[in-house]
Amino acid sequence: MLTKNKIKFVRSLRSKKERYSHNCFVIEGEKIVQEALNSNFEVDDVYALDSFDLSNDNIAMSLASKKEMDAMSGLKQAPGILAVAKFKNWGPIDLNKGKYILLDTLNDPGNLGTIIRIADWFAFDGIICSTTSVDVYNQKVVQSSMGSLFRVPVWYADLKNVIEESPLPCIAAVMKGEDFRGFSFPKSGLLLLGSESHGVSDELLSLIDSPVTIPRLGKAESLNVSVAAGILCQAFS
Amino acid sequence: MLTKNKIKFVRSLRSKKERYSHNCFVIEGEKIVQEALNSNFEVDDVYALDSFDLSNDNIAMSLASKKEMDAMSGLKQAPGILAVAKFKNWGPIDLNKGKYILLDTLNDPGNLGTIIRIADWFAFDGIICSTTSVDVYNQKVVQSSMGSLFRVPVWYADLKNVIEESPLPCIAAVMKGEDFRGFSFPKSGLLLLGSESHGVSDELLSLIDSPVTIPRLGKAESLNVSVAAGILCQAFS
Repeated sequence: MLTKNKIKFVRSLRSKKERYSHNCFVIEGEKIVQEALNSNFEVDDVYALDSFDLSNDNIAMSLASKKEMDAMSGLKQAPGILAVAKFKNWGPIDLNKGKYILLDTLNDPGNLGTIIRIADWFAFDGIICSTTSVDVYNQKVVQSSMGSLFRVPVWYADLKNVIEESPLPCIAAVMKGEDFRGFSFPKSGLLLLGSESHGVSDELLSLIDSPVTIPRLGKAESLNVSVAAGILCQAFS
Repeated sequence: MLTKNKIKFVRSLRSKKERYSHNCFVIEGEKIVQEALNSNFEVDDVYALDSFDLSNDNIAMSLASKKEMDAMSGLKQAPGILAVAKFKNWGPIDLNKGKYILLDTLNDPGNLGTIIRIADWFAFDGIICSTTSVDVYNQKVVQSSMGSLFRVPVWYADLKNVIEESPLPCIAAVMKGEDFRGFSFPKSGLLLLGSESHGVSDELLSLIDSPVTIPRLGKAESLNVSVAAGILCQAFS
């Protein structure tokens, strides 16, 4: 049986403040827990219903009852396996080469998770979020990244400094820019995407090298930011 | 003051069964309610806090208290304006020309809403969902479509019949197909996408004309289905 304090601790990690005071976060589901164990993230604890057998993997696992799992789980339906992992220090960003996605005030956790998955698929070197963006260790981000979180470095920084200090060209997705289909994407560069509702801030727009646009043929007011990220990362890959 | 029965009715529309027995659904938020009113959907009732002023639009609106709005709202935070709209009959599908997205067992409401928005952006003629897919009038679909739902026809049908009966070529997104970047997309056609976890079913795969793939450069196991839809619809547009 798990102690009440253990359960309380896992639950407390739903709060960003608690995550950052303990430097750890929660992951749920067999596939993503396996990915965490196979990654170079440090996994502190694994809790599971007795129907899970990870014995082949030599994992120290604590058995939990259904009631305990339900109490710990942050998902609507507890998948029955949950782990607590440590934050990863990705080290300094090498802004001299590579392909990076820059996110200016991205608020929706599902979008960040999806963009991490896109970065992983198209082999980008990492994601740099404005400090005003959603926390990468928010459980919805973790779950929607489908394990890509363990492979793609995500940093938080002042994007103004990043763009100013990097010799890499900065390409931004905007509503009225050059048609991306005719744009010659560089070998290395920064791809800047704005928030769901306000796009890229004016302050950052004044610093970019190339504004690009995905032409609209129909009537939607905008594309979802992770869909725009997918289309532009594909073109940039 | 609203009657208890009105509030109960609006709440009941969270259930698919109730929606289909009354042929109506709920929309929330000023922008999307405005879009509904400007569309050729029939809007039965609009409820709003007294802070909303739609008087310019000649809309019969019922005032609701914050408590009443909270009771009716299906969202975490009630935006304070809510409408009940009638289902739209989009008429028969013309399968002889045009560009259609076919969705095989798409389960996630956010993905369907995002794909409706993509279809609207790239001016596709409509979406045909397998009958096993999530309901288009599910509130999460409605909200994440950001109003595109009022412009893009969505039908439910047996996709096997659709593919067999249509003279249009069927292109399917698969893991091991032709690189979509070298593929010559036709002028009209069906773009078939599979479910989040299982892809396109074998039964349908045996009926398609062209399997296409978005090449993977990194390590993610898959792309989110709405991101794949965005990339392929862009190429097909």
